[in-house]
Amino acid sequence: MSKIIDQYHVTTEPYYHPVADEVKLYEAAYSVRMPMMLKGPTGCGKTRFVEYMAWKLKKPLITVACNEDMTASDLVGRFLLDANGTSWQDGPLAVAARYGAICYLDEVVEARQDTTVVIHPLTDNRRVLPLEKKGELIHAHADFQIVISYNPGYQSLMKDLKQSTKQRFGALDFNYPSHDIESAIVAHESGVPSDIAEKLVSIAERARNLKGHGLDEGISTRMLIYAGSLITKKVDAQAACRVALVRPITDDPDMRDALDAAVSTFFN
Amino acid sequence: MSKIIDQYHVTTEPYYHPVADEVKLYEAAYSVRMPMMLKGPTGCGKTRFVEYMAWKLKKPLITVACNEDMTASDLVGRFLLDANGTSWQDGPLAVAARYGAICYLDEVVEARQDTTVVIHPLTDNRRVLPLEKKGELIHAHADFQIVISYNPGYQSLMKDLKQSTKQRFGALDFNYPSHDIESAIVAHESGVPSDIAEKLVSIAERARNLKGHGLDEGISTRMLIYAGSLITKKVDAQAACRVALVRPITDDPDMRDALDAAVSTFFN
Amino acid sequence: MSKIIDQYHVTTEPYYHPVADEVKLYEAAYSVRMPMMLKGPTGCGKTRFVEYMAWKLKKPLITVACNEDMTASDLVGRFLLDANGTSWQDGPLAVAARYGAICYLDEVVEARQDTTVVIHPLTDNRRVLPLEKKGELIHAHADFQIVISYNPGYQSLMKDLKQSTKQRFGALDFNYPSHDIESAIVAHESGVPSDIAEKLVSIAERARNLKGHGLDEGISTRMLIYAGSLITKKVDAQAACRVALVRPITDDPDMRDALDAAVSTFFN
Amino acid sequence: MSKIIDQYHVTTEPYYHPVADEVKLYEAAYSVRMPMMLKGPTGCGKTRFVEYMAWKLKKPLITVACNEDMTASDLVGRFLLDANGTSWQDGPLAVAARYGAICYLDEVVEARQDTTVVIHPLTDNRRVLPLEKKGELIHAHADFQIVISYNPGYQSLMKDLKQSTKQRFGALDFNYPSHDIESAIVAHESGVPSDIAEKLVSIAERARNLKGHGLDEGISTRMLIYAGSLITKKVDAQAACRVALVRPITDDPDMRDALDAAVSTFFN
Amino acid sequence: MSKIIDQYHVTTEPYYHPVADEVKLYEAAYSVRMPMMLKGPTGCGKTRFVEYMAWKLKKPLITVACNEDMTASDLVGRFLLDANGTSWQDGPLAVAARYGAICYLDEVVEARQDTTVVIHPLTDNRRVLPLEKKGELIHAHADFQIVISYNPGYQSLMKDLKQSTKQRFGALDFNYPSHDIESAIVAHESGVPSDIAEKLVSIAERARNLKGHGLDEGISTRMLIYAGSLITKKVDAQAACRVALVRPITDDPDMRDALDAAVSTFFN
Amino acid sequence: MSKIIDQYHVTTEPYYHPVADEVKLYEAAYSVRMPMMLKGPTGCGKTRFVEYMAWKLKKPLITVACNEDMTASDLVGRFLLDANGTSWQDGPLAVAARYGAICYLDEVVEARQDTTVVIHPLTDNRRVLPLEKKGELIHAHADFQIVISYNPGYQSLMKDLKQSTKQRFGALDFNYPSHDIESAIVAHESGVPSDIAEKLVSIAERARNLKGHGLDEGISTRMLIYAGSLITKKVDAQAACRVALVRPITDDPDMRDALDAAVSTFFN
Repeated sequence: MSKIIDQYHVTTEPYYHPVADEVKLYEAAYSVRMPMMLKGPTGCGKTRFVEYMAWKLKKPLITVACNEDMTASDLVGRFLLDANGTSWQDGPLAVAARYGAICYLDEVVEARQDTTVVIHPLTDNRRVLPLEKKGELIHAHADFQIVISYNPGYQSLMKDLKQSTKQRFGALDFNYPSHDIESAIVAHESGVPSDIAEKLVSIAERARNLKGHGLDEGISTRMLIYAGSLITKKVDAQAACRVALVRPITDDPDMRDALDAAVSTFFN
Repeated sequence: MSKIIDQYHVTTEPYYHPVADEVKLYEAAYSVRMPMMLKGPTGCGKTRFVEYMAWKLKKPLITVACNEDMTASDLVGRFLLDANGTSWQDGPLAVAARYGAICYLDEVVEARQDTTVVIHPLTDNRRVLPLEKKGELIHAHADFQIVISYNPGYQSLMKDLKQSTKQRFGALDFNYPSHDIESAIVAHESGVPSDIAEKLVSIAERARNLKGHGLDEGISTRMLIYAGSLITKKVDAQAACRVALVRPITDDPDMRDALDAAVSTFFN
Repeated sequence: MSKIIDQYHVTTEPYYHPVADEVKLYEAAYSVRMPMMLKGPTGCGKTRFVEYMAWKLKKPLITVACNEDMTASDLVGRFLLDANGTSWQDGPLAVAARYGAICYLDEVVEARQDTTVVIHPLTDNRRVLPLEKKGELIHAHADFQIVISYNPGYQSLMKDLKQSTKQRFGALDFNYPSHDIESAIVAHESGVPSDIAEKLVSIAERARNLKGHGLDEGISTRMLIYAGSLITKKVDAQAACRVALVRPITDDPDMRDALDAAVSTFFN
Repeated sequence: MSKIIDQYHVTTEPYYHPVADEVKLYEAAYSVRMPMMLKGPTGCGKTRFVEYMAWKLKKPLITVACNEDMTASDLVGRFLLDANGTSWQDGPLAVAARYGAICYLDEVVEARQDTTVVIHPLTDNRRVLPLEKKGELIHAHADFQIVISYNPGYQSLMKDLKQSTKQRFGALDFNYPSHDIESAIVAHESGVPSDIAEKLVSIAERARNLKGHGLDEGISTRMLIYAGSLITKKVDAQAACRVALVRPITDDPDMRDALDAAVSTFFN
Repeated sequence: MSKIIDQYHVTTEPYYHPVADEVKLYEAAYSVRMPMMLKGPTGCGKTRFVEYMAWKLKKPLITVACNEDMTASDLVGRFLLDANGTSWQDGPLAVAARYGAICYLDEVVEARQDTTVVIHPLTDNRRVLPLEKKGELIHAHADFQIVISYNPGYQSLMKDLKQSTKQRFGALDFNYPSHDIESAIVAHESGVPSDIAEKLVSIAERARNLKGHGLDEGISTRMLIYAGSLITKKVDAQAACRVALVRPITDDPDMRDALDAAVSTFFN
Repeated sequence: MSKIIDQYHVTTEPYYHPVADEVKLYEAAYSVRMPMMLKGPTGCGKTRFVEYMAWKLKKPLITVACNEDMTASDLVGRFLLDANGTSWQDGPLAVAARYGAICYLDEVVEARQDTTVVIHPLTDNRRVLPLEKKGELIHAHADFQIVISYNPGYQSLMKDLKQSTKQRFGALDFNYPSHDIESAIVAHESGVPSDIAEKLVSIAERARNLKGHGLDEGISTRMLIYAGSLITKKVDAQAACRVALVRPITDDPDMRDALDAAVSTFFN
């Protein structure tokens, strides 16, 4: 059984560059096992942060990418048929609660209500997970903690977390890193020299200013690393930016021209 | 069989601070097994109250977090396949009715109609639960009682209990405790000294005045306990309030400023 | 097999107070096995009446609380898997038709069309129930009768019985009993002296006048019995009315004040 | 196998009173196995007519009450699990096609499209029913005919037969019988003397004139027979009309008064 | 296995009267296995044409009547449970692709998108059908061709083929045959003398002019054959037209009068 | 096991005519295993390009035609029942990740969110695919790459990729090839002489100018090849264009006239 949980240990240190006091705050929150909500835009490093904390705290990490077709059973578990009839199989949330992992529900707002409500008894002082179909009540392992991510600029009126869910979590804000930190990250992850990395970050900063003025989202750190990786592979810098930064986020001709112009300012 | 029900006994006294005559009224209601509805905002102590009463009355408590994807079968039970064909498995409501537990349906308005209608025959003088799929009629155990929770400020036009359901329940109103009681609760549960607890409660009171003026819900007692727990762990009080009180309930910059200012008034 | 039906006999006389000629009319309708529709508001005694008639006619009674998630199979039956493959299990309607019970579909308008259409062949001169999935045609037992309930003030445009369904039933109107009869019922069922019972009924009458003027439904007889039961258990009369009559039906502050004032007029 | 079909023979002559040339036309249509559509209001005798014709032609009759939750599999058949794995079970349409019955789909417009489309290959010169799930193609028995009913005043824009379905059927119009014929039917079926029957028919005629002026449907012949049956059982005629004719079709007070007045004109 | 496909051979020549160069064009299309779309109104002979071509080309024909509840599995196949576990069963499209039939999807626009998208890889140069659930890739038999039908006047905005589907097919237009050809068809198929057939066609032509002016669809050739068949069975010509031509397509009294008048012009 | 993947190798060089630097850019992207998005209109060669690249890179290619009824299980895999109970079967995405194929999700925007979200962990630095139902975490094979196609002019407001999905892909734009390249493709693929091919391309160019002015989509290269194939089979050029170019894309009479006129300009 412990083998199931072993595969979720983060064995090598993830590259993470602290921005403020988020590491210390998270450690305090984990010490009282407070459920945590990581807020911030797409691709700014929330997933990387939780991997880093799991590595630092030496706890296994079970990540679930939520989606609107996921059911409570996908989290909690279900009966499967085998040669001797049915046998119960824990879902990722039950595995985490039973063996003491950090359970990270990525983009939890995408999930249906039954997914989010199912975590309620794990987030108050009871710390239990009722497996109603099995008639079992899991008392969470002392190491268990639940973490969710949430993109505030992304929610519509139709799709938001219920207040009774939000109130069960402490919250940490995330945003794109500062110019210098982001440049260091891009250089480290893609292998480009730091001057190239700085140029890429500058392009991203221009694009982020267009968010809400024709762009739904800015250019993420992850996209800059993609662009850098192509440049490392000897692709022309303008072509790399076109493929990795501009074409993915907009089909609007004017916006494409504006972004291509920003690219030309830095690479020509 | 009695082992199934045993795991639902509340073995240690839950910390509960009575506010008015709710304990006496509930005891009278239980003595005639009147179905009860607990009304009030998120996080004001309804769940804690029912746990306290179950402990006081020495009855097992089965709690079900309702959600809109829950089916009647999730409450009543279903046939499962095993090595010898199918076998019936009681759902939580059937277990409660059969063995005499208090069955607490939390946020019952979230459930689909079939969930709420299924409790009707348990709420009138018949006190039966038809397991239609099994062809069995459970006559409820003498100790059985049904309790539901309901957040009146939370229901939309599309989602409300049917009148024919509401009329089957006696109702108790709940609200946040008074300043002194709430401070005592926060101090007791989080370990902070009482002056810190009072400051936290004062911040919450300011936020609750903003409900309906930019906030959907106020700050709950549970959130104050979270903030206190972080302070006990040596986290700076302002940071603790930011993580546990402000960031979880709003993403609006003005509202965040207003709440952060309230925090600064008490902690600086 | 006959044991299945035996559990549905009403063995003790239900307390029922006739209001007009409804007992005689029902007996005539039953004598020609006319399908019957009982019309009237929530909690006015329709269910109690059909239990009384079943007792009086010495016929078993199978009650089904309808809901919008109920399928035709929930009424008619389905194949279940057992050790030897699948075996058919009659649903409540098939049991009633096969063994000669009165089948009472409570709030039938809540059900989906397939539930209501499935009863058609049982309501005309054929009196058959096709079990299409099983390839069997049940010819209804000579004692079988179908009864449905219907709350006319409750239906929306989207949810009403089809005319072709309505026309298959004779109909009886029900309403709250007269002052004296209702007082007698409340005194009998809750154990309060008759002067208290009369006061409770008077409060209900005031609330019923507010139906459509801020209240969706009036206070039902069942609620008065709940209030009386609390008073019998030494609960203060005003508190009992608050818990059992006022809080369950409205969250509107003005309406609560109006109802509380009506309570104070009679109990102070 | 032939036993399955035997239970669908109409063994005693149904009471049917021809109105025009419908019997002769139907016989001609059956002789070329033309699919037929019977059009007319609720309760005017369409179902009785097809039973009569099945009896007259000495062909088994399989009636299916259509509804919006019925699937193509409910008509065509499905695989069932038994001790040796899965075995195919013909649905009512497949039984009718295979063994040569008249298959009567009552209120076919209620069914989903897959139900209606599934009959197409049985209605053109191919006269086949593909059991796609089983990989079998049933060539319809020489005696097989398909008949559907349809209430033209009843369809909404959202729910109508597709033109490509309508064009596959010959059509016969039905309406309530003439005064004399209807009186004879009511007297015959309910056992009341003919003067009472005539009065009942006269009341119905008045109500039918109100169709579209406050009533969705008129009073059907079936309802008159119900009223007559109550009168035969010594129920007062006014009470019988109230229960069987007026209360079932309207809850509007003015309309009830109008209909009650019509009743008083004939019975006092 | 080849026996499965054998039952789909068209063994006797279908009666088909070519209108233009459609036979030659189809033969060319088949010779390059171009997927074909047959466009035209209900009942104008599209199905008959594809049967004729299958007979002429000596290829088996598998026809599937599409509907909005059909799933991709209904076309492609599914796993069935038998005594030894699950076994795969090809759906009609997989049978056609594997053994080299013409697969005719009638009224394909009725199907859900997964049905139409599933045919894409069979319509480009790959000519493969991935059985994703089985993990098999069927390379279509050299004789396989896919044909769909489509009624352009019938599609709504909500329900149309995707452009990326339409572009995968060559298209042939169909319409009702010319007066002489249609008369010959009606005479041949129904057995009426040619003067009667001509009169029937003339009535249809008048009705077709009313399409869009009160009629949704004109009278089809198939309906004329029905009318002729009744006349052959000694039914009066006016009654035959009423039953087979007028009553099926309209319930509007004015339109019925207009069509009945047209009938009287030719038969009196 | 390796046999499963072998069937997905592209064994013969697909005919592909590079337009710009797309081959070089794709090779660089593949060398860092960057997930790629191919953007462009229907039938312009996106699928052919990815087949060509798979052949060039000597990697197996698994193509999945996405649709709105596809579930995450269709991609990831599911448990199947066999003689020994259930056994897991990898879906196409799991096969690709496990054995190192290029997985091409065609028209991914058609899929439901659970399909698109399921690919997220494969598109960031983790490169894992959690098989949550099986409790296994696949670490993608070093050769694995994910590619999606996307038609920007085709998406509605209701149906678009989430920004958090788009940002995970590099993007390449595709469009119809230049006149000369497209003519060469048509001649090569259909066998017509190059002058005929040029005329066909000229007709397509005229139609593409009508896109947005009465046509939803232009004429694709694939349609030109169909027309050429019919001409090669001795079909008259005008008839071939009518069948393969005009009739499939429009039913509007004016638009048909305009397109037929364009055809006549080149073939007469």
